[in-house]
Amino acid sequence: MIAIQYYKVILVEPKHPGNIGAVARIMKNFDVTSLSLVNPCDITDDSYIRAVHADDILDNAQIFPSFEKATESIDFLAATLSKETLSEKKHLRNPLYLHEFSDRIQAAEGTIGLVFGREDFGLLNEEIDECDVIVRIPTNPAYKALNLSHSVGIFLYSLYVVDTEIPEKRTPIDGKEKQHLYKAFSDLLNAIDYPLHKKEKTEVMFKRMMSRSIPSKWEYHTLMGVIRTAVKHLDQHK
Amino acid sequence: MIAIQYYKVILVEPKHPGNIGAVARIMKNFDVTSLSLVNPCDITDDSYIRAVHADDILDNAQIFPSFEKATESIDFLAATLSKETLSEKKHLRNPLYLHEFSDRIQAAEGTIGLVFGREDFGLLNEEIDECDVIVRIPTNPAYKALNLSHSVGIFLYSLYVVDTEIPEKRTPIDGKEKQHLYKAFSDLLNAIDYPLHKKEKTEVMFKRMMSRSIPSKWEYHTLMGVIRTAVKHLDQHK
Repeated sequence: MIAIQYYKVILVEPKHPGNIGAVARIMKNFDVTSLSLVNPCDITDDSYIRAVHADDILDNAQIFPSFEKATESIDFLAATLSKETLSEKKHLRNPLYLHEFSDRIQAAEGTIGLVFGREDFGLLNEEIDECDVIVRIPTNPAYKALNLSHSVGIFLYSLYVVDTEIPEKRTPIDGKEKQHLYKAFSDLLNAIDYPLHKKEKTEVMFKRMMSRSIPSKWEYHTLMGVIRTAVKHLDQHK
Repeated sequence: MIAIQYYKVILVEPKHPGNIGAVARIMKNFDVTSLSLVNPCDITDDSYIRAVHADDILDNAQIFPSFEKATESIDFLAATLSKETLSEKKHLRNPLYLHEFSDRIQAAEGTIGLVFGREDFGLLNEEIDECDVIVRIPTNPAYKALNLSHSVGIFLYSLYVVDTEIPEKRTPIDGKEKQHLYKAFSDLLNAIDYPLHKKEKTEVMFKRMMSRSIPSKWEYHTLMGVIRTAVKHLDQHK
């Protein structure tokens, strides 16, 4: 079975019309057509000049008033980092490098949102928290800040060249199943009287580990079975 | 023995000052500092604006009156193609794809010139003939023409990820820690009276999931803590 994937580029509050155009052009170069803009600057003549033959991508770009609205129908969200802003640093525990992500995401199905932050200060804490995985484009430590359209270009190139021949295609779990799994893990933490002050951090960790691992349906059901049975046993003796 | 390599970006007759600046910036992002310009447009304020913190690369750019002069001291010349202009088509007999080139060039020593053609009509026959290899950046056949600085960016990213083997790694868990984690998971299965006939398969599944997720030390300790506490609670009531 071939995984059906659909990539969406999501720019959060882009400030320069030219950048939006340059992003549209590089998207077309790698055959990704869906562009979502969260609270963007105006799309101007400069956007169209920089887009060259990708005017259709600009014409069809969807504009959203908030990050939540832009991402609510997305199955899997990847936040992209190149420079590390202060808020991003806190979340940098475990990014996947771009080539690792590109390899693994091949197995995923559904709509995959590639999220790129503001030109000046990237993504906010709460936006990063909403993402399933953080992807890092490795760069020169002495000058990490990539231009926005370059981040998008390198990201899409990396996805484009990855060989689609994956030995065993897994059927990854969908958004609803993911939520059930995270809920079950949270129930497990409650059942073992996990320290409250550590709980949220540990839940986020589990989420990130699962996202990196991209579980198949079978793995999902098996792991759910183990966790739920454990919770049931534990709750019986409360 | 480690090959000593030195990359030089060579732009042939770039027409837009902004493009030269954008190339300088992306070069600095990937720690390549040597820029040669063949009969270029002027370097203007716009070049410096687009270069952001890579002004030193612009300041030190070498300007040559001809392709021959720019390339005479280079050990190995790679011509880059994304779109195929008419003259380029004739030479497309045997291009290497960028990722193939990136893998192979690691073994080369000396000065390696990466040649990028004019924004509008690329490289001339005689320029391509001077190059040792033609490198192709795979793109959407419906829109192949990459922006100049994007070609350079994708090219340098590709070399950078092969070369650096990832600058800052996560500290993944070692073999012993992995065994402890698998043992703890196995104990959990016992503690919940997991069906014996399914046990081995589920253990293997957990192992695979963890391998794909590449846990960090912190994640390892946190997850171990959760599983061991669950086992302890469960065993108390046996």
